Amino acid sequence: MAKANKAIKTADKAANAKPGTSPAKAAPVQTKALQSKTAMMKVAAAKAAPAVADDAPVIALNLPPGKLSPAMTAYFKKCQDKLGFVPNVLVAYAFDNTKLETFVALYNDLMLGDSGLSKLEREMIAVAVSSHNRCYYCLTAHGAAVRQYSGNPLLGEQIVMNYRVARISKRQRAMLDFAVKLTAAPGSVEEGDRERLRRAGFTDRDIWDISAVAGFFNMSNRVASATDMRPNTAYHGQAR
Amino acid sequence: MAKANKAIKTADKAANAKPGTSPAKAAPVQTKALQSKTAMMKVAAAKAAPAVADDAPVIALNLPPGKLSPAMTAYFKKCQDKLGFVPNVLVAYAFDNTKLETFVALYNDLMLGDSGLSKLEREMIAVAVSSHNRCYYCLTAHGAAVRQYSGNPLLGEQIVMNYRVARISKRQRAMLDFAVKLTAAPGSVEEGDRERLRRAGFTDRDIWDISAVAGFFNMSNRVASATDMRPNTAYHGQAR
Amino acid sequence: MAKANKAIKTADKAANAKPGTSPAKAAPVQTKALQSKTAMMKVAAAKAAPAVADDAPVIALNLPPGKLSPAMTAYFKKCQDKLGFVPNVLVAYAFDNTKLETFVALYNDLMLGDSGLSKLEREMIAVAVSSHNRCYYCLTAHGAAVRQYSGNPLLGEQIVMNYRVARISKRQRAMLDFAVKLTAAPGSVEEGDRERLRRAGFTDRDIWDISAVAGFFNMSNRVASATDMRPNTAYHGQAR
Amino acid sequence: MAKANKAIKTADKAANAKPGTSPAKAAPVQTKALQSKTAMMKVAAAKAAPAVADDAPVIALNLPPGKLSPAMTAYFKKCQDKLGFVPNVLVAYAFDNTKLETFVALYNDLMLGDSGLSKLEREMIAVAVSSHNRCYYCLTAHGAAVRQYSGNPLLGEQIVMNYRVARISKRQRAMLDFAVKLTAAPGSVEEGDRERLRRAGFTDRDIWDISAVAGFFNMSNRVASATDMRPNTAYHGQAR
Amino acid sequence: MAKANKAIKTADKAANAKPGTSPAKAAPVQTKALQSKTAMMKVAAAKAAPAVADDAPVIALNLPPGKLSPAMTAYFKKCQDKLGFVPNVLVAYAFDNTKLETFVALYNDLMLGDSGLSKLEREMIAVAVSSHNRCYYCLTAHGAAVRQYSGNPLLGEQIVMNYRVARISKRQRAMLDFAVKLTAAPGSVEEGDRERLRRAGFTDRDIWDISAVAGFFNMSNRVASATDMRPNTAYHGQAR
Amino acid sequence: MAKANKAIKTADKAANAKPGTSPAKAAPVQTKALQSKTAMMKVAAAKAAPAVADDAPVIALNLPPGKLSPAMTAYFKKCQDKLGFVPNVLVAYAFDNTKLETFVALYNDLMLGDSGLSKLEREMIAVAVSSHNRCYYCLTAHGAAVRQYSGNPLLGEQIVMNYRVARISKRQRAMLDFAVKLTAAPGSVEEGDRERLRRAGFTDRDIWDISAVAGFFNMSNRVASATDMRPNTAYHGQAR
Repeated sequence: MAKANKAIKTADKAANAKPGTSPAKAAPVQTKALQSKTAMMKVAAAKAAPAVADDAPVIALNLPPGKLSPAMTAYFKKCQDKLGFVPNVLVAYAFDNTKLETFVALYNDLMLGDSGLSKLEREMIAVAVSSHNRCYYCLTAHGAAVRQYSGNPLLGEQIVMNYRVARISKRQRAMLDFAVKLTAAPGSVEEGDRERLRRAGFTDRDIWDISAVAGFFNMSNRVASATDMRPNTAYHGQAR
Repeated sequence: MAKANKAIKTADKAANAKPGTSPAKAAPVQTKALQSKTAMMKVAAAKAAPAVADDAPVIALNLPPGKLSPAMTAYFKKCQDKLGFVPNVLVAYAFDNTKLETFVALYNDLMLGDSGLSKLEREMIAVAVSSHNRCYYCLTAHGAAVRQYSGNPLLGEQIVMNYRVARISKRQRAMLDFAVKLTAAPGSVEEGDRERLRRAGFTDRDIWDISAVAGFFNMSNRVASATDMRPNTAYHGQAR
Repeated sequence: MAKANKAIKTADKAANAKPGTSPAKAAPVQTKALQSKTAMMKVAAAKAAPAVADDAPVIALNLPPGKLSPAMTAYFKKCQDKLGFVPNVLVAYAFDNTKLETFVALYNDLMLGDSGLSKLEREMIAVAVSSHNRCYYCLTAHGAAVRQYSGNPLLGEQIVMNYRVARISKRQRAMLDFAVKLTAAPGSVEEGDRERLRRAGFTDRDIWDISAVAGFFNMSNRVASATDMRPNTAYHGQAR
Repeated sequence: MAKANKAIKTADKAANAKPGTSPAKAAPVQTKALQSKTAMMKVAAAKAAPAVADDAPVIALNLPPGKLSPAMTAYFKKCQDKLGFVPNVLVAYAFDNTKLETFVALYNDLMLGDSGLSKLEREMIAVAVSSHNRCYYCLTAHGAAVRQYSGNPLLGEQIVMNYRVARISKRQRAMLDFAVKLTAAPGSVEEGDRERLRRAGFTDRDIWDISAVAGFFNMSNRVASATDMRPNTAYHGQAR
Repeated sequence: MAKANKAIKTADKAANAKPGTSPAKAAPVQTKALQSKTAMMKVAAAKAAPAVADDAPVIALNLPPGKLSPAMTAYFKKCQDKLGFVPNVLVAYAFDNTKLETFVALYNDLMLGDSGLSKLEREMIAVAVSSHNRCYYCLTAHGAAVRQYSGNPLLGEQIVMNYRVARISKRQRAMLDFAVKLTAAPGSVEEGDRERLRRAGFTDRDIWDISAVAGFFNMSNRVASATDMRPNTAYHGQAR
Repeated sequence: MAKANKAIKTADKAANAKPGTSPAKAAPVQTKALQSKTAMMKVAAAKAAPAVADDAPVIALNLPPGKLSPAMTAYFKKCQDKLGFVPNVLVAYAFDNTKLETFVALYNDLMLGDSGLSKLEREMIAVAVSSHNRCYYCLTAHGAAVRQYSGNPLLGEQIVMNYRVARISKRQRAMLDFAVKLTAAPGSVEEGDRERLRRAGFTDRDIWDISAVAGFFNMSNRVASATDMRPNTAYHGQAR
């Protein structure tokens, strides 16, 4: 299964590439969490004394942490080194190493692997889908990614709130229209919808990728909402 | 990445375990399709001269088939031997071996791996979610699985049409109510919904599994609908 | 009221014409039910020992059976002889002979009387409407009818699941689009919708018939859902 | 088919019983319409020179009038004598005598036959359902009936606009809640909904009648909307 | 703040202009209500002994009446003199003179001030929006206004029930389509929608006014529904 | 109209009170805009060279700026001095001084006047309503206000994305549930909803205020969406 290893490597490269992340506040606690089994599902709030405390567990399910494989342990360490924290979605999946590995392989292939869609465009799809589904975790984490990749903080905010107000290219608008229709009414997507993407310049492979990314976040949004997954506090301040 | 290999093996075991599948009509054509690159996206209709022909390609995207890894080639052969055909969703993903492998690993872990949910219960979730999303591919393939696993053809039909009419246990009804609410309005799922599952006898790990299976089919439904994926004709007649 | 008698006769003819129904398992019990007043609302499950029993009463209301007129008694006997069973919807209405007669007269005129729509097309409308409304009884009974009339089992399944995936003519697609829009948002149907039907080749009389059949199943779906009406088990296996 | 004749007779009795209808303005034109085939689908506006003319045909389909049976001719004459006009829905169905007869028999049995529901209660259901479906014809004709039967003009207006604001008994509120849920989401009606009706004092036969009346107007609303059926102008001023 | 005074004056002029209002039954009670603090929130039903009593308080909140400014006292007196009653919405706001004044100033500027939209057109928007939101108070009060301004009682009824059935100009239809889309799905309104209004002959200032009136009734509908605001009985009989 | 002047003064006080706003980048351009009529509807983007330019006009309607009254001119100057910019919604309304004054008076009374709701709570309602309606302008401006008033940046983000994830008091949750139900389905709000607020500790006057603030943003959201209103860039960075 050499390709799966390749997907992990792609992720590492991306972690290296993520621009401008400071060596993050929540990190030490997270690292400790990965070592200490009983504390694993907690993440300390980065903010001193907010009016409403936000030191919730990562998810609202009580799942004892599992034993990570060396590959996953190394991957978490790389996240810590490069991002300053391990994204909470990975902490959430860490109760079962197989589930964590399959999630990481799928995520990294879709969001960081070869595609006719830029990494920014894939993040734009992630946010537009998550906005339709009102997923707090994904809007926070991927809203930050849109801000980072685009260098345009407003763009991230706009797609979180209502992608229709974003001043994007016709190609990108067609892409988001398709992703959101596929999210809202999947059973009504038909050849005419694919044709609109082709007319906007997308290849059939691009259409697969748009669909797969939109599909993936329809999965992740639901896992996150079903478990009340909480984003790392660090995301909120990134790339404003 | 030993665990991913284990997931593939779990799938093999399940292929062996699938009850009562006759050595299937569409199979030879499918096998040839896997060997011949240009024909790969086609699957012959099993039915002679239907009023409306159904010899459509597997998906409505023109994606040249990719080179399969030895593991995936062996997996396809095992499907052919045990089921009589390679499920079209695998044929569809076969344009890219990495995407195929990550899909197979995720699918097999979720649907066939260890869980407090029986395999039938996971298929019931698959069908209830796919019914809400009106996904032709998944309703056909997983409707057949519910008929097979339950030995109750009516149960499969009922969940395809409206899971509320199925005469199932309170536990299973709570499970499907959660899965369908998570499908229809993910952003409105809250602690009260999890509590209802706990009161119906589910553990927190079960709740994760219900959410993950429901999430997975919200992804697959959308990939299938976005690409007009067509189920193997053989499913229609299984376990009636 | 000679015409109403004609409608009953039309129904008889249709009962004769229904292809390929074997002399049906549930029939003897049904016949007894029609003779025995106390047992009338029960129908035995055809399947031996299903995982989940399905020997439910025909409807979830406790309505003592009424006295049938000679015409209706003869009609039930003809159903028994030709179909092998009396459709449960008729058993349900049999608590009141007037209601049964008006239902039969309306049904037979709409579904079996003269029309520019073929009998198959009227059944396609029945199933597409019932799919939108998720009516278990009508999807089962009329899904079987689409399979029978078309000789294409897949077509029946497709319209049950999502009529948009069926490979049908543009004319038939326009017909189902109108019927489903009329079902989903009747107050938004306007001249433009009728014009689309005319452009697809339908006459004004055809438009009436499409509307009347779609309307009828919007009624029947609701009577069936309100009373938890259960279809005869025999339908499930027909014309697979 | 003696019972069908009885249903027609019940309707005659009701026509006699309808309170306070003045010998209506639009009547002569209507009578002529019934005699003159070419003019049949038109009804003159009662109001002199409205800002926006309303002399539309009865429906937006061009259907040549059919030959009425003696029974239906007599029934139209009785409407004319007692109500001052023939309701346009009957004029619309008159293109085909069988369809007219089956509609009349069904309507009269449901709305005027024996039932545990008062005639006013059945009209309240008619209006609440038609309000959900935004059916102009039925809201106008049956809104007038609620005003007449109740002697409370406000009640008719309230159910047209939003039945939740009507100051009605708990029993009647439960009845309308059931009818509107059955209209909005028929596939979600379950035993709990029937139990709520039973707790509000309704028998199982009453539940059938509520369902049948709600179902009937879900049919009629769609036939009316699909054909742009226009109510007789006389209804607007009745029982204000 | 001279302009605000001008808005009040505009309202006075409009009160004078309202055609055909008889010197109203409920008025004396209303006048007394304005003088007597404890009785202020009640309005007597005009109708003797309706089947269901309608002598409800103006709103379902217990708010002690406030002290009116001389301007507002004069305004109420003018309403009484010219309309025969003080509209209940003003009675409802009268618990706080500032809230009453700002409401009156906004209302009168929007509905009676200078605009490219006629007063009838603004009332048509009010009713179409209120019909979407099913607001009993606004449908009653502004339905009466459409009947009065248009001299066409049917037009008022039609927009209350379903504006799509009204026989209005293409310009007015475009206006109502925009207002109802803005009501139903505000986040989906885009440049294409504004362009449709421009093509129908509206200026950019007109578009503002359509939006502002539609917006205003989306506010008022909600205040009225949230408080169960009851319309003056006199509206029901106006301009039939 | 002394009270209206008081409302303006209340606003001034609030402008003074708004915490932590730096003397803002966009301000000089805005000030010039207020002096130069032709440029008035433009606002310069604060951010140097974003990937996607955001120097759009304030609204997508071409409305020549009106002459401001001395009171409004002073008010704009005060905004400039205290906030560093004039909120674009005021710039948008400035084409007509009467509309601007009535908007300011209503806004300031609702959001800054006496109430049992804290200013933060009123802003929370503003954001929850605007999130349901997906209003970019209001989410941006009032999301910033929630961040400021609460001193909890996460709270602002959470209510923008999905208020259900915010860790707020039961009282505040009941308040937002009511406001969002009133937004989504105003015609279904009834006494039970008001009772829930009372049980959560709200007085009838509080219920009025919740309803009035929710209603106001249902108006403003629609004016903003209908005109493509753009928020001042400065909001994005406030109180992160």
